[in-house]
Amino acid sequence: MASTRDVVAIVGVGLIGGSIGMALRQRKLADRVIGVGRNAERLRLAVDLGAVTETTTSLGDGVKDADLVVVCAPVETIPDLVQRIAPDCRAEAVITDVGSTKQLLVSEVETRMSGGQATFVGSHPLAGSEKTGVTHATADLYMNRTVVVTPTESTPAAAVTKVQQFWRALGATIVTMSTEEHDRALAITSHLPHLIASALAASTPIDYQTLVATGWRDTTRIAGADPELWQQILLQNRTNVLRGLEQFAKLLASFEQGLQQNDAAAIENLLVTGKQRHDALAD
Amino acid sequence: MASTRDVVAIVGVGLIGGSIGMALRQRKLADRVIGVGRNAERLRLAVDLGAVTETTTSLGDGVKDADLVVVCAPVETIPDLVQRIAPDCRAEAVITDVGSTKQLLVSEVETRMSGGQATFVGSHPLAGSEKTGVTHATADLYMNRTVVVTPTESTPAAAVTKVQQFWRALGATIVTMSTEEHDRALAITSHLPHLIASALAASTPIDYQTLVATGWRDTTRIAGADPELWQQILLQNRTNVLRGLEQFAKLLASFEQGLQQNDAAAIENLLVTGKQRHDALAD
Repeated sequence: MASTRDVVAIVGVGLIGGSIGMALRQRKLADRVIGVGRNAERLRLAVDLGAVTETTTSLGDGVKDADLVVVCAPVETIPDLVQRIAPDCRAEAVITDVGSTKQLLVSEVETRMSGGQATFVGSHPLAGSEKTGVTHATADLYMNRTVVVTPTESTPAAAVTKVQQFWRALGATIVTMSTEEHDRALAITSHLPHLIASALAASTPIDYQTLVATGWRDTTRIAGADPELWQQILLQNRTNVLRGLEQFAKLLASFEQGLQQNDAAAIENLLVTGKQRHDALAD
Repeated sequence: MASTRDVVAIVGVGLIGGSIGMALRQRKLADRVIGVGRNAERLRLAVDLGAVTETTTSLGDGVKDADLVVVCAPVETIPDLVQRIAPDCRAEAVITDVGSTKQLLVSEVETRMSGGQATFVGSHPLAGSEKTGVTHATADLYMNRTVVVTPTESTPAAAVTKVQQFWRALGATIVTMSTEEHDRALAITSHLPHLIASALAASTPIDYQTLVATGWRDTTRIAGADPELWQQILLQNRTNVLRGLEQFAKLLASFEQGLQQNDAAAIENLLVTGKQRHDALAD
């Protein structure tokens, strides 16, 4: 991504893909940013907002000149999309994605791709929003955010470097780990919080509207995200999420016991642990 | 509080009390705002920051001229403080508080107060922060926020009106309900979220620091609050919190079952319910 003559294709120009395009253009990192999608009107909006330089509804036409292809789609659809575009990509091209799960997704991609084709390297930018659509895209979405890059044993080093440099050029900090490590960690730092925020929102009666304050709003904010996207993420990583849920349930049980026994010291100790962990991790 | 000749005493000038003082002064709602506390240096800071016009470390001196006394202290200490100041207050004075629990607190206050003394009316402003101290106080903390006012059967109507007008003058919207209703609702909209945020923070390994993003930060933000204050709140309202926890655990169990059975429709339905409830309540 050091060359300004690069051609980048973005398959799916919503919040995530649109923000990539805007950052590439604002930082003059690519000559051509090709937006590929199914909806011509939404693609036109992406051009109007400065996210891409050209658009097409044809997957093959969209990717054929690209040095780098970024697939920005729901996790379930990524392997199929990569399989469909790979034969039309240049053999030197690198394909990456932005999926929130990696283990199942990357292994499925690798099963479906043939030798002599473009190379796939999995990515997961830890950035986003409960909002969707290119109208919410912003050029600094990846500034100072972590992007996890997840090569496998068979990924060529040059392709890994290319993907790392791509995200770094958008302002991100790179963490490289295996797909298994990624899914184990993100189950706890992202997928479990999502499930919990949703369950908390769902357990609040609708007639308490005037009685919710910033605490409730913050704690449940991510419950406002797209249910279909998140159903896929939770199920693709269900073993790790279930393990995280078990751990979380143990802590809830400790709180429950402390409340039942009216044990101030026990409750305060639990809250101190929560605060310490929060303060250490959130900084 | 319509008169500008009012004298208001604030017992405990931290984030909450300091913000009341700043709002009173900025809106010219009181001639004298008396800050009462134990630490002379912190009281001086409250004067320097414009939160109060005068200060004292003597409870009796602080409250004796006041038309309205606002006790801003941890919930466990409020009944004792009210009992101590009531004999020094003018008989026409109204005392209120800012405690996050009401049922146990107000009933204890009423048990401890004698006839012929100032009148107590419970309040709970749904505003605040995980931050503490007068340095974080701001004059608009109560703007467009809900303040719950919780009279009992024995509270004179004039005193209730005075407290409602006081908070309304600071920009708040007033909800009036019984102490029982308050505690039942706030267990769900505030106390349970706090417990859950804390448990979620505590179940996140410390070495995942680079892998937490805004979702985790938002969901756990309130876990950064003062453990001692919140231990008191959770225990004072433990019956309702336990009931909320039970309800929440049922939803977690539904998620768990959906994940175990790899049931996409069930997971998506749960997430849809969470989103609908979130969107309806957070607006």
